Amino acid sequence: MAQINDNYLKLKAGYLFPEIARRVNEFAAANPDAKVIRLGIGDVTRPLVPAVLKAFHEGVDDMAKGETFHGYGPEQGYAWLSDIIIEKAYKPLGVELETSEVFISDGSKCDSSNILDIFDLGNKVAICDPVYPVYNDTNVMVGRTGEADDKGYYEGIVYMPCTAENSFAPAIPQEKADVIYLCFPNNPTGTVATRETLKQWVDYALKHDAVILFDAAYEAFISDPDIPHSIYEIEGAKKCAIEFRSFSKTAGFTGVRCGLTVVPEELTGTTADGERYSFNKLWNRRQSTKFNGVSYPVQKAAAAVYSDEGWAQVKDVIDYYMENARIIREGLTAAGIECYGGVNAPYIWLHTPEGMSSWDFFDKLLQECHVVGTPGSGFGPSGEGYFRLSAFGDRENVEQAVERIKKKWGK
Amino acid sequence: MAQINDNYLKLKAGYLFPEIARRVNEFAAANPDAKVIRLGIGDVTRPLVPAVLKAFHEGVDDMAKGETFHGYGPEQGYAWLSDIIIEKAYKPLGVELETSEVFISDGSKCDSSNILDIFDLGNKVAICDPVYPVYNDTNVMVGRTGEADDKGYYEGIVYMPCTAENSFAPAIPQEKADVIYLCFPNNPTGTVATRETLKQWVDYALKHDAVILFDAAYEAFISDPDIPHSIYEIEGAKKCAIEFRSFSKTAGFTGVRCGLTVVPEELTGTTADGERYSFNKLWNRRQSTKFNGVSYPVQKAAAAVYSDEGWAQVKDVIDYYMENARIIREGLTAAGIECYGGVNAPYIWLHTPEGMSSWDFFDKLLQECHVVGTPGSGFGPSGEGYFRLSAFGDRENVEQAVERIKKKWGK
Repeated sequence: MAQINDNYLKLKAGYLFPEIARRVNEFAAANPDAKVIRLGIGDVTRPLVPAVLKAFHEGVDDMAKGETFHGYGPEQGYAWLSDIIIEKAYKPLGVELETSEVFISDGSKCDSSNILDIFDLGNKVAICDPVYPVYNDTNVMVGRTGEADDKGYYEGIVYMPCTAENSFAPAIPQEKADVIYLCFPNNPTGTVATRETLKQWVDYALKHDAVILFDAAYEAFISDPDIPHSIYEIEGAKKCAIEFRSFSKTAGFTGVRCGLTVVPEELTGTTADGERYSFNKLWNRRQSTKFNGVSYPVQKAAAAVYSDEGWAQVKDVIDYYMENARIIREGLTAAGIECYGGVNAPYIWLHTPEGMSSWDFFDKLLQECHVVGTPGSGFGPSGEGYFRLSAFGDRENVEQAVERIKKKWGK
Repeated sequence: MAQINDNYLKLKAGYLFPEIARRVNEFAAANPDAKVIRLGIGDVTRPLVPAVLKAFHEGVDDMAKGETFHGYGPEQGYAWLSDIIIEKAYKPLGVELETSEVFISDGSKCDSSNILDIFDLGNKVAICDPVYPVYNDTNVMVGRTGEADDKGYYEGIVYMPCTAENSFAPAIPQEKADVIYLCFPNNPTGTVATRETLKQWVDYALKHDAVILFDAAYEAFISDPDIPHSIYEIEGAKKCAIEFRSFSKTAGFTGVRCGLTVVPEELTGTTADGERYSFNKLWNRRQSTKFNGVSYPVQKAAAAVYSDEGWAQVKDVIDYYMENARIIREGLTAAGIECYGGVNAPYIWLHTPEGMSSWDFFDKLLQECHVVGTPGSGFGPSGEGYFRLSAFGDRENVEQAVERIKKKWGK
């Protein structure tokens, strides 16, 4: 008798974004003439840049001839891609990495989910609240938690509330955590972490022999030279942190699919016998067995992101989105709505006006302004009363969305 | 204190194919002038066909303009791809499927691994021996087994030996199994299953409320009209089977990455409370949460496989490989080597000559003929004394490899 994984039944409702899609589709079907502006899911809208397109096409052309055809690639990704990332994205930060420490994948969502495979179920996990729902839900699905309480907190997880009261900076947990998810620049709050903040986390992790799962998907949006782009800029981090990066937001790859995970050789965990064991070896075995590498033309396209030409073009797109962020932030602030983030981060996190709940504001914004955002409560209980807008829209749409919101809520 | 997943430590040696790559690289480094012919990993060698290349380029071009740019796609794949597969690959078999039953992925290796996520750890799993190592290893990694015995059998798994004595057809297990992996046309033995054979399995699964995980990655190589391409050609299979398919071998996508998994709406399992629950819902939740869809240009390329033009071109490549299979099978048979498979399947499974062990034959074949194959024992204990050659090489290489083997072992 085949039994299902019952842990899935503990999950509340659908995953956040499909639920948003459902409501938006319902609205659009009922209001076919409404021009809906989507600043919800945080999906990019600008086309791929020319240097990336050129490399992508060349990668496809390579598949047309026997001599340049590429079959199975390394499950870890091609070394030429890992090496260019090490050289262009890490070396300038003063971070030295080996090729074997960089694993190319089809995206950070997959990696930050799949990474749980190599950890014992008994580890105590700490996550921020609000948080990217994947961290929470994947821990529920794998059976690390009990049921959720009325607020939506799952038994067994250490939640670290992030609200305006603590400037959206999670406090170091009082209790001992073994695995800690951190994301800076933060999704959804747009908060960034200073070197000092990250050092406190690294110190905590080293002291407790914990592992930090550091999501740096938005590092390319940092403009302040004092804000670290990688946790490995902090001394000792290679002994206690795994870092996820993505081409999704950096280079418009949400539909192209490429990311990477750094698992330093120095990072070890404990076996049941109390021996030390390399997480790099475990992740390598995991990827070799359960993954088959990223599409070759996609990897060619990704490498072009870090060419001089490619990076200049990609940087222009990032600047474009950050100008959107400024427009949203300043527009909403002018309308009397309390805003956070949107500097060094592509997300604006706002307090819902008139004390509305997050989903009420979602529905009102959709019904009355035809603008889609993301309800803060979808990211966790402490997100209730907040709302996320993304800066990844087209300029014209962003300006129009801000005008509509100003008209509705502005004084 | 972060603890590792100790189940990984139960795994024997490396995953098979990286170990082969290691030995081949070592040989190549020591013998830089040797022309090594690789008929090992079963990787395709022919370029993508023109219709697929054209669609792939068009997909990339779509990413160049705001109006046709594609960001995040559905985690389940685009409906236009699922629908063309239903129409062109299933309907002609008399199998009706809904769009919601087809999940597009980045390959069968990932899906046949990840599918374990939705099953309870307590299920009893049955796998063939020899077998594609991923089925075995992923069950070890997730903690469904004890340690391996001296032969390499893991405690807790039901192994179904497939040898020349039973014509490589696994016997229906005497004991009760909850999840059964079947792969036809078989990797590694090249065996196919008749309608009658599959019906016995479906009957067994329905009787015991078991789920068959049916790997149909090689169905495109079937030419005999009496051999089923899909398990759903058997009545009742939608109530008891998940089917995996892949573009890898069918259309040369090993480096492009696209596959699909069918999870019928009718397929249910049991919850801890004894209720029935839909595996389709579970897999949908799993993919929505832990996966982010397949690269858009890749999906465009995959859809072109099933255009009239694309399919004719793809079929030519399949015929080319099957002619290779014939050359290998007949050449080796003429050299007095006992061969199986190679008809309706792109793998030739041979008895090692002179009673050699699989790895001894591997080393001898590499050292003396400069030909790479796959040791049968790498697929499980019952593969000892057997060896796999793949038909996916270039014609000239295949002919040369056969000549070298004939010269070495032929009478």
